[in-house]
Amino acid sequence: MPTTSPHLEQHDHDRAGLLQALEAGDLDKVQRYCDEDLAPADLAHIMESSPGRVRELLWDFLSDERQGAVLPHLNEDLQQAFLAQMNAHEILETTQDLDHDDLADLLQQIPEPVTRQVLSLMPPSDRATVEGLLAYPEDTAGGLMNTDLITVRADVTLETVLRYLRRLELPDHLDSLWVVNRQFRYVGLLPITKLLTHAPETPVREIMQDDIEGIPATLHEDQVARRFERLDLVSAPVVNDEGILLGRITVDDVVDVIRDSADHAVMSMAGLDEEDDIFAPVIRTTRSRAVWLGINMLTAFIAAAVMSQFEATIAQIVALAVLSPVVASMGGIAGSQTLTVMIRGMATGHVKRDNLGWLISRELGSGAVNGVLWASIIGAITIGWYQDSDLALVIAAAIVINLVVAVCAGATLPFLLKSLRIDPALAGTVVLTTITDVVGFLTFLSLATLFLL
Amino acid sequence: MPTTSPHLEQHDHDRAGLLQALEAGDLDKVQRYCDEDLAPADLAHIMESSPGRVRELLWDFLSDERQGAVLPHLNEDLQQAFLAQMNAHEILETTQDLDHDDLADLLQQIPEPVTRQVLSLMPPSDRATVEGLLAYPEDTAGGLMNTDLITVRADVTLETVLRYLRRLELPDHLDSLWVVNRQFRYVGLLPITKLLTHAPETPVREIMQDDIEGIPATLHEDQVARRFERLDLVSAPVVNDEGILLGRITVDDVVDVIRDSADHAVMSMAGLDEEDDIFAPVIRTTRSRAVWLGINMLTAFIAAAVMSQFEATIAQIVALAVLSPVVASMGGIAGSQTLTVMIRGMATGHVKRDNLGWLISRELGSGAVNGVLWASIIGAITIGWYQDSDLALVIAAAIVINLVVAVCAGATLPFLLKSLRIDPALAGTVVLTTITDVVGFLTFLSLATLFLL
Repeated sequence: MPTTSPHLEQHDHDRAGLLQALEAGDLDKVQRYCDEDLAPADLAHIMESSPGRVRELLWDFLSDERQGAVLPHLNEDLQQAFLAQMNAHEILETTQDLDHDDLADLLQQIPEPVTRQVLSLMPPSDRATVEGLLAYPEDTAGGLMNTDLITVRADVTLETVLRYLRRLELPDHLDSLWVVNRQFRYVGLLPITKLLTHAPETPVREIMQDDIEGIPATLHEDQVARRFERLDLVSAPVVNDEGILLGRITVDDVVDVIRDSADHAVMSMAGLDEEDDIFAPVIRTTRSRAVWLGINMLTAFIAAAVMSQFEATIAQIVALAVLSPVVASMGGIAGSQTLTVMIRGMATGHVKRDNLGWLISRELGSGAVNGVLWASIIGAITIGWYQDSDLALVIAAAIVINLVVAVCAGATLPFLLKSLRIDPALAGTVVLTTITDVVGFLTFLSLATLFLL
Repeated sequence: MPTTSPHLEQHDHDRAGLLQALEAGDLDKVQRYCDEDLAPADLAHIMESSPGRVRELLWDFLSDERQGAVLPHLNEDLQQAFLAQMNAHEILETTQDLDHDDLADLLQQIPEPVTRQVLSLMPPSDRATVEGLLAYPEDTAGGLMNTDLITVRADVTLETVLRYLRRLELPDHLDSLWVVNRQFRYVGLLPITKLLTHAPETPVREIMQDDIEGIPATLHEDQVARRFERLDLVSAPVVNDEGILLGRITVDDVVDVIRDSADHAVMSMAGLDEEDDIFAPVIRTTRSRAVWLGINMLTAFIAAAVMSQFEATIAQIVALAVLSPVVASMGGIAGSQTLTVMIRGMATGHVKRDNLGWLISRELGSGAVNGVLWASIIGAITIGWYQDSDLALVIAAAIVINLVVAVCAGATLPFLLKSLRIDPALAGTVVLTTITDVVGFLTFLSLATLFLL
């Protein structure tokens, strides 16, 4: 009988128990945890949050079958690491109980020649299915779909359908059967709840739903997710250009897509990859972080080079050195707010060509008002600090200009980057702060050179 | 018959058509779009991505019933705006077809007295249900659940269950029936696919599943979402402390939770609220952005105040003014990478007390290695630029120190902020960059004062 204790606490409890047993060297207990007590997803989670040594240990405790069940739940870094230790025979052995779509995802983590080897060892019918799945990029509807379809014809009765179902093993998340014609073209769906509530002699045609369209196999996974969200779907049919039914997508895969794209948005702003192993050894972590530090060093030196053009001015008025970073950072903040709103608006589909003009003018208006507001306050602080009203006027003017430029840049950069096929979430902030630093230093220091010397 | 055209394109097409009809003053066409052609979620999406004038226009085209269907799909800002225009009678009229959980969510957007008025106008049984839902905070399992339960007893046969179902109108996302005992305590679930594949005389007890625990009504929605993800659920039972079945949560609500928490993570890093209306008028946008600019201005002035302590040094060596921002920004980048990894690790549950020490030492190691690497490179650039090897040594030392401090701060801040009940996603970056700016300026300029003057 189920208890009411939160499952997460149970999971934490098991995790602690497993790690304790490992520590104590109680191998029987570890084996029991690995064999029975923990679900594959929980084992994967524990392995992901452990250092390398513990991972290897746990992995060796798992039977081939358990290894196969755990693999799809691991991040790509770990999948690659474990798959790299196996040859084609072992990979096939380990993954034999997996769904075809999970297997296809795993095969994309290993070198092409090994993939070909694994495929050549598979029974021809399985091979054809998996090859079909591999033909679609991972981030499309075709890459997400599974092929565990149950199809019926529109002209049969529910009684026939029920008799047919009793002979099958039904897949998970079965909420609808797919209705197809003789050419296997998708024509509608039959919710299984209707099988329960309608008379057995009813023909499928009479109660099938034809308002859910087939998802084209080439549709991007983000758009697939949006469709699931908008229509509250549990599963949806995937079709090719001719409308032939290829497979189905279930909501559990869509949940993963949403989670991954969320993680991507957050991680890429810091130059990180959401599939990275956060428990990677020092050397790997250092390498993956170094690239981003290098890019940012370049942008910092660009700003420094701009500032160094004004060394003569700064030598005369040292306050300029102190206040320059303030001007630059206010622009950075204002710009990144606009940038974030725009990137999110593009992702949700709220920002379109037809309302872009309105949005940009709104951002400009808001940037100008905030510019004047904070320019006044910063000007006042400057007077209080340095007793210099000319300096205050110069910094105020620089703040207004930098905020307006920042907001313009924040509003237009995502579109510019996207049209150059650069991910705005990854590059947006770097490019933006380079602009706001350069413009901030340039306006503040050149206005100072003109009016204060 | 469904076509294979991507639904999103259809949605874009409808949106363009609707806006065109509005523009052209073709009111019959607008009315048709509002009455039939567009799904409530699509209408809500179009309204969210339109300026205020268009929204009001479209809203007036909607019948009471359609208004009610659209409301739950709007962001909170818009829900509040439209609900504020109605009195209690109108709200009840408009929302009469909504599920109880959607109604409860809406009632949380209006002032308490109006909520009480609406409740007092409802039939007693509905009122009791909605009041029960309002008792749970919006962000808990109780706040997410719906009360459209179909329950059965363990001792009846499938035939009885089937007969019972035929008399009901089945709710959406019905994948399981809930098995309860005489006290309405949750004891297990009966997947409806089993109704199709097992003989009618089978008792429920024999085929019910008891491995899915009831979700406590007080569990936080993020943990509910994690459980759905881990166990690939479509629906799950919600229970109180005594294990009494209160309601069920369906995956469509969980998808919204995941999407919202993702949006929250991204938006709060720029000091924005994910429920804000991105098409709000200039004045509202300006106000919501101003707070964040003000906070950041304070931190910028803290850094400036630190720098101003060294004005005498800067006056003698102007290069220090040029290079200070480089030191500060390298620390900011390194720290925010660690911060992001930690915040995400906490959200996914990968970072725990038992592996925190390992993670911090790993981050420190990586910070030190990257510190030495980039200190050498920046030192070399400085020699090339200013032909001053002492200056190069000073900036290199400052970079190493700032990167190590930044990484420590990034690793520990999330826990510190969380224990102070401050959202790390919101405050983390601000606090972190204040630290890296202050430490960067302080080490670089004081080392320079000590060794270069």
